[in-house]
Amino acid sequence: MSIHSVVVVGGTHGNELTGVRLIEQWQQLYPHFEQPSLAIKPLMANQLAVDKRVRFIDQDLNRQFTQSDTPINDDHEVGLAKRLSTALGPKSDGQPDLIIDVHNTTSNMGATLILVDDTQFDQQLARYVHKQMPSCNVLLENEKPYAQHPYLCTLGKKGVMIEMGAQPQGVCRADIFQQSLTLLNHILVFCHAWNADNLTTLDACPVYQFDELVTFPLDQDGHVSAMIHPDVQDKDFHAVNPGDPIFLGFDGVNIIWQGDTTTYPHFINEAAYQQSHVAFSTARKILW
Amino acid sequence: MSIHSVVVVGGTHGNELTGVRLIEQWQQLYPHFEQPSLAIKPLMANQLAVDKRVRFIDQDLNRQFTQSDTPINDDHEVGLAKRLSTALGPKSDGQPDLIIDVHNTTSNMGATLILVDDTQFDQQLARYVHKQMPSCNVLLENEKPYAQHPYLCTLGKKGVMIEMGAQPQGVCRADIFQQSLTLLNHILVFCHAWNADNLTTLDACPVYQFDELVTFPLDQDGHVSAMIHPDVQDKDFHAVNPGDPIFLGFDGVNIIWQGDTTTYPHFINEAAYQQSHVAFSTARKILW
Repeated sequence: MSIHSVVVVGGTHGNELTGVRLIEQWQQLYPHFEQPSLAIKPLMANQLAVDKRVRFIDQDLNRQFTQSDTPINDDHEVGLAKRLSTALGPKSDGQPDLIIDVHNTTSNMGATLILVDDTQFDQQLARYVHKQMPSCNVLLENEKPYAQHPYLCTLGKKGVMIEMGAQPQGVCRADIFQQSLTLLNHILVFCHAWNADNLTTLDACPVYQFDELVTFPLDQDGHVSAMIHPDVQDKDFHAVNPGDPIFLGFDGVNIIWQGDTTTYPHFINEAAYQQSHVAFSTARKILW
Repeated sequence: MSIHSVVVVGGTHGNELTGVRLIEQWQQLYPHFEQPSLAIKPLMANQLAVDKRVRFIDQDLNRQFTQSDTPINDDHEVGLAKRLSTALGPKSDGQPDLIIDVHNTTSNMGATLILVDDTQFDQQLARYVHKQMPSCNVLLENEKPYAQHPYLCTLGKKGVMIEMGAQPQGVCRADIFQQSLTLLNHILVFCHAWNADNLTTLDACPVYQFDELVTFPLDQDGHVSAMIHPDVQDKDFHAVNPGDPIFLGFDGVNIIWQGDTTTYPHFINEAAYQQSHVAFSTARKILW
């Protein structure tokens, strides 16, 4: 399929300011992005959360888009998800050809392209972005079928996220903002080349495939009893081998990675995941 | 006066996790701090905000402690401030000899000792900390008399804050945590030496004296129209001279520092101050 209609989304989480500022300033930024074969529209997904400078009001909006009907209640994001599904097109017949949802993380993930499917389009996009922007990481979350993901971007026939960090919640850093414009531009240039069928042969690229969530150790009072080890903090997508330190306890004792194989932690010390005590995600490194 | 009773406070802002973890783990960390002439107690100031992982529920707790009576209302922090004043001793007769309040900032301020008075005690403390930990910055906010500051720490006969960054809200970094233990320990060792009157002559130290708040430029829609310039981001307490770039507009144009003299920005891009559009504070550099 060719890509014609594209929606660029910011403010899915109201305190991730790269996407918020991008959408607020869309009029003057759009000329950077324009491509002959694309009709690109901006969307501020959760204006109320943006106004209140919070991730969400009642529930995480980016977990509301599973295909199954969720029970209706008064939560702001439940109603908002229904309205967005109607406005963008129901998930069974996703209306925009591509949704690109712009996120931030407090983890030092640099520029990361998150793919939730492994179609030819996704694979070629990954290779193209890797060639143009070798510092960009590609993260693949394909542990479930595309339509079963709860992410807003899956309202599109195709959907991807760009995840930019490290940036604190509620802050917009110029370096992160400029990297996000660069990555977004590469994605849109790729789409035009994909439509024109004039992509040259692209070299294979490394892809980090999501494996599992790892939680912080807790003490008998239920308090977090360790920190991300200083050797691991800010080292998203760096290899951790069995026997490497992974946490540093408040008692001063190192806690060792017990896995059987090398793993690639990411979303290390992400603020939004600490409510559920998630310390990081792991990934396998594969080649596409 | 000698310093006997000391209260170490965390969780004045519920999403600043260095102090929160410090108080949660007080039992096992306390042996690092113990000093013969001091009775040191921990205090989690705003447990509800800690539980909800927010800076505050209704109002900033660290702005509730001016000496004047504020109108009573149902806001969580208004009532909490009254209870803390009663528990710690009314401000007119501050009960603990010293309150040390542990904060975090998203700004790259490293370890910063914030003083709100310029007594001999404050000056000697600054010199001692500077000697022991030269990387620690000393920030002086003495634009109003001690008792008129709204800060929780001013419930003590003496009060200081330690401000540790850069750390995102809702995250605890091991490097920042370890620096905070180091700085806290220096302060407590100093207090014991102050009591014993055995401080040797201390060299003069640089002090950054708060000057004013600078806000982000806004566009006609009221949106922030510029970012902290990449040359300034993460450069807290570095000199900015007239004519240096200070903001980078979303239109790509640099905005220049218009001041008459060299200034020392700090609290650069602090997340908590963006609701009021504050981009940074300025300071003059003086010598104590």
